[in-house]
Amino acid sequence: MQGNYRALWLNDDFFDECLEVVDQTKLPFEYHTKYLTTTEEVVLSIKNMTVRGAGVIGSVAAFGIYIAALEVEGDYEKLKEKASLIRESRPTAVNLMWAVDRMMELLKESDNLIEDARKYAIELNDNEALESQKIAKYGCDIIEEILKKKNKTKINILTHCNAGWLAVIDEGTALAPIYEAKRRGIDVHVWVDETRPRNQGASLTAWELSQSGIEHTIIADNTGGHLMQIDEVDMVIVGADRVSANGDVANKIGTYLKALAAYDNGIPFYVAIPASTFDFEINDGQKEIPIELRSEDEVHYIRGIDRDGALREIRITPEGSHAINYGFDVTPARLITGLITNKGVCEADFDRIREKFNKQ
Amino acid sequence: MQGNYRALWLNDDFFDECLEVVDQTKLPFEYHTKYLTTTEEVVLSIKNMTVRGAGVIGSVAAFGIYIAALEVEGDYEKLKEKASLIRESRPTAVNLMWAVDRMMELLKESDNLIEDARKYAIELNDNEALESQKIAKYGCDIIEEILKKKNKTKINILTHCNAGWLAVIDEGTALAPIYEAKRRGIDVHVWVDETRPRNQGASLTAWELSQSGIEHTIIADNTGGHLMQIDEVDMVIVGADRVSANGDVANKIGTYLKALAAYDNGIPFYVAIPASTFDFEINDGQKEIPIELRSEDEVHYIRGIDRDGALREIRITPEGSHAINYGFDVTPARLITGLITNKGVCEADFDRIREKFNKQ
Repeated sequence: MQGNYRALWLNDDFFDECLEVVDQTKLPFEYHTKYLTTTEEVVLSIKNMTVRGAGVIGSVAAFGIYIAALEVEGDYEKLKEKASLIRESRPTAVNLMWAVDRMMELLKESDNLIEDARKYAIELNDNEALESQKIAKYGCDIIEEILKKKNKTKINILTHCNAGWLAVIDEGTALAPIYEAKRRGIDVHVWVDETRPRNQGASLTAWELSQSGIEHTIIADNTGGHLMQIDEVDMVIVGADRVSANGDVANKIGTYLKALAAYDNGIPFYVAIPASTFDFEINDGQKEIPIELRSEDEVHYIRGIDRDGALREIRITPEGSHAINYGFDVTPARLITGLITNKGVCEADFDRIREKFNKQ
Repeated sequence: MQGNYRALWLNDDFFDECLEVVDQTKLPFEYHTKYLTTTEEVVLSIKNMTVRGAGVIGSVAAFGIYIAALEVEGDYEKLKEKASLIRESRPTAVNLMWAVDRMMELLKESDNLIEDARKYAIELNDNEALESQKIAKYGCDIIEEILKKKNKTKINILTHCNAGWLAVIDEGTALAPIYEAKRRGIDVHVWVDETRPRNQGASLTAWELSQSGIEHTIIADNTGGHLMQIDEVDMVIVGADRVSANGDVANKIGTYLKALAAYDNGIPFYVAIPASTFDFEINDGQKEIPIELRSEDEVHYIRGIDRDGALREIRITPEGSHAINYGFDVTPARLITGLITNKGVCEADFDRIREKFNKQ
């Protein structure tokens, strides 16, 4: 794989620029990239999870608007139609809607749509990268506090799904403080929930941490509660796909179960997010955040490598049994110790969130 | 497959009788049986999970004593050595130790060791089957109560791992009330936790329920919490591998997380067990029940069928990443609504358990 740890970038090897993305469906077994040259390809790559993770979906959407602008040759009315297609490609992560809306707002009065779309998409990405760096710093300060309080020299952090650089521009959200801990010389070990059914933990988080030489152990999603009971987890950090105004957190299915276990065992449970993950339109996350229902085939079939190193898909359930596949759940604010944001740590509470992010 | 739904039986097609067991490692894709003719084969079949489930392990152990008695030609001292090997084959399910100890106690004064070992093993099995039938009845009474209370005609039950006839002689423990519900004409739907890493839910419970025509849906282990939040679960029933005197329940890893979610959402959480699952020697289940640590390969590798219907094993994690694989966790008594036993429903409480089971 290439040296820069980014999930997407602009590629100008062609007549028109295109978006090049890491194909996350074949990791950790094969590292491929894909070129996205049309709106249709952008939408499909989000739907089929070639690209995934709230932040990266937002970034791909922003660059998708630029790709679409090239396609419609700078016609704003036609761009609006393309933008709707991108905006509706997945329902739960709000960064997607936010990025599309922000781009379209900025481009409303533009005299030079194509050039401006390119500029604003790059700016939006650079800004997300900056926020990721701030999350790294604030999150790592908490790690240091916990170590000090517990009088320990090594920290055990549990994470669910993937919220590293494959999911969010730069170093991610949940993993950013862990990368920063490594830079600060802190002895860190990560419990990686495999995160069924798509196994983003086992396949993406484990791979990312391996690439950076960070000690980690993969566990079945069932295992985290027991590890907390036997005092093998010092803190939990997860990312989020949408945080409502009252601090409820939609994240990968199963997050709620880990939050319950952390609460039951007095273990700090943090959610790391950039500002774009807040949805101030929604006051009650549990009642109002739409939860994506994905294909049951993601439960029935699984990918891996066989003895000869070939990538294979197998069926792991009986033919004739049905499955259901919700992509996310909502963790109520009452179970969350704090939100690690680009503006510092914030209580998962309506008023505290409003104060910090100056919303009316 | 054959018509009788039993996980093991005596086979007298050979010169010496042997134990024939359903090979549970290849279900639901292939139905095979294995002959166990030596103590070594009995021990291995328990260790590698050819047979699994607390009750069935106990039954195999009891018949294992008979197989061992044949092997040592009725010498009690030599039988004691063989019995130790069987007793130590797995650490968490107490039914194993209980069955071995009970058999050896009964055989202590025997003049006819081989014949008596056969007789007592059959008796022990028949008794477990009887207890399973009682659990079915008491458990189904609860199902009817819940339906009445909620004024519903269809019940949604969530279960974890496999505690049906593949796990416990006759109809199992957790699944027994569900089979009984079907007989009583109740409309029942089961949420089947796939139960990583060995997938006993997706492979065994789903298969069992299919065989009996019971409506069910397989879910990733991460999904149960969300289903409880959106009111799609009316009750949880699980089995157990050991219940301490204070009512703490050791069961398949991940059970604790579901108990937390049930408690958080006010959903009844029941544990179905025969008397042999109690361990009155242990007062504090959370501190004292030994938790089996199994090979990390069970997390790295998974079995299923490929496009051509061939059984295949693939690796689903990056080479170089480690995993850890605890087989069980302990659910504290405070999260349990009740224990469904062969003597009726019992609160998960030290005094109530003692009262019902007349222990001093």
